[in-house]
Amino acid sequence: MPLNLDAVGTVSDPTETSWDSKDAILYALGVGSGTDEQAFVTENSIDLDQEVLPTMAVVIPAIGGGMSKLGDFNWAMLVHGEQGIRLHRPIPVSGTVSSQTEITGIYDKGKGALVVMETRSTDVATGEPLFDTMMSAFIRGEGDFGGERGPSGPQNVPPDRAPDHAVTYQTRPDQALLYRLSGDRNPLHSDPKFAALAGFDRPILHGLCTFGFTGRALLHTLCDRDPSRFTAMDGRFSSPVFPGEALTVNMWVEGGEAVFQTTGDDGRVVLDAGKCTFAG
Amino acid sequence: MPLNLDAVGTVSDPTETSWDSKDAILYALGVGSGTDEQAFVTENSIDLDQEVLPTMAVVIPAIGGGMSKLGDFNWAMLVHGEQGIRLHRPIPVSGTVSSQTEITGIYDKGKGALVVMETRSTDVATGEPLFDTMMSAFIRGEGDFGGERGPSGPQNVPPDRAPDHAVTYQTRPDQALLYRLSGDRNPLHSDPKFAALAGFDRPILHGLCTFGFTGRALLHTLCDRDPSRFTAMDGRFSSPVFPGEALTVNMWVEGGEAVFQTTGDDGRVVLDAGKCTFAG
Repeated sequence: MPLNLDAVGTVSDPTETSWDSKDAILYALGVGSGTDEQAFVTENSIDLDQEVLPTMAVVIPAIGGGMSKLGDFNWAMLVHGEQGIRLHRPIPVSGTVSSQTEITGIYDKGKGALVVMETRSTDVATGEPLFDTMMSAFIRGEGDFGGERGPSGPQNVPPDRAPDHAVTYQTRPDQALLYRLSGDRNPLHSDPKFAALAGFDRPILHGLCTFGFTGRALLHTLCDRDPSRFTAMDGRFSSPVFPGEALTVNMWVEGGEAVFQTTGDDGRVVLDAGKCTFAG
Repeated sequence: MPLNLDAVGTVSDPTETSWDSKDAILYALGVGSGTDEQAFVTENSIDLDQEVLPTMAVVIPAIGGGMSKLGDFNWAMLVHGEQGIRLHRPIPVSGTVSSQTEITGIYDKGKGALVVMETRSTDVATGEPLFDTMMSAFIRGEGDFGGERGPSGPQNVPPDRAPDHAVTYQTRPDQALLYRLSGDRNPLHSDPKFAALAGFDRPILHGLCTFGFTGRALLHTLCDRDPSRFTAMDGRFSSPVFPGEALTVNMWVEGGEAVFQTTGDDGRVVLDAGKCTFAG
């Protein structure tokens, strides 16, 4: 069944999502924060206020709010393509956002359709915009509908020099088991039998968990751990990651921007075409 | 201010506590379950039902429900002494219990008072008893009130032979950060500054986290991973544990009972006088 191409430009009804201090800690632990990131993993330390990782924006509003307008399709054919976040201010330790998702494009990639969405979230307490999240999803088997191919070609290409910074974090064999408690319970990330049906030797890590590990490296390296300086991050998922792999985030800095690539154990790029924008 | 000795024999009003599948997974991850304990850490695997670790009984009803009857005392002077659990049936994946706590004794240990409590929890859905938890707390500075010393002397002493089973689990440096999300947010387990005030070089692991790691070893070794066979577990906290230590559970089996001791990195006993009762 073809996608509903008229969905482009539609905006979902607002939905509210709340989170609290425990959710923020659980998310931070899920993307690898530990004892050396005290502010992100505790709420009651002496002389230290809790802070929230900027990438938590991707787990607060449930993904797919506006996707019902696409019509029926096989969700098993959906692959997460690109992910971006834009922070208007630091995420509070607890709060409620009102979110609306706009489908900004459906592109014809031949073997599939690329659906591009943007979700804008407003802090209900203040009425001010808090963060936006942008994602694209590739839906296999839904292409060849005679549409435009959309934007293509390389972007955020690293300059021809060694990275200015490289940070390596070890993920754990049970990383996905913990990360999934922040919301995405797809058994592809936890059940070996389900993963086998999808063609994997074992469950794979959530792409957004890799995104979160990468965001920590960017935050600590480029923003001196200060979430108020972290303004935007984009990247494209280019290879599955297995829990237990070490992730290395390579950064090339130019002014208040950095291009980045995250690589896995064997050096292959797993999060590509990355760009982080930061202040101060 | 002296403890209210008339509290002995009093029973708290019933309080209800609910938990769900996510709580059970979070608890299991907090006491070290991982990818090789699929049933305890996932809720939606093919051909596999979620199960609940028996030791989760210690985090379901909030501790201290009946302790207000003890009068005012300095909670900073309280040390967890012994902990026991008795399972009447396996803990369901989600549910609600109604719990009442009886203060069964207040003993005069000279340097402090030993308060002994039992909390009985009934499954609200069925009206049947689900589990009981027994604990003793030593309150420094509250002794010398002319009371009885209470039961003393060695108990559950291992026989004079090598353990029949010994299981070693590695705790992680951030183990307490994860475990505390199951309820006990005492900063002694997370804040280096608070831990220093209490005289520790760094935050210590929750005694009940050590209890949970130990319970996993007993469940897997004595009960073939089957929670329905695990009927009771008792032990006495004898030394603080630091997150990152390896814990070794030594077991001596006699019929349907096992005496156990859990030791830390350096071989010192951290959970002593242990007994586990199991069926089948």
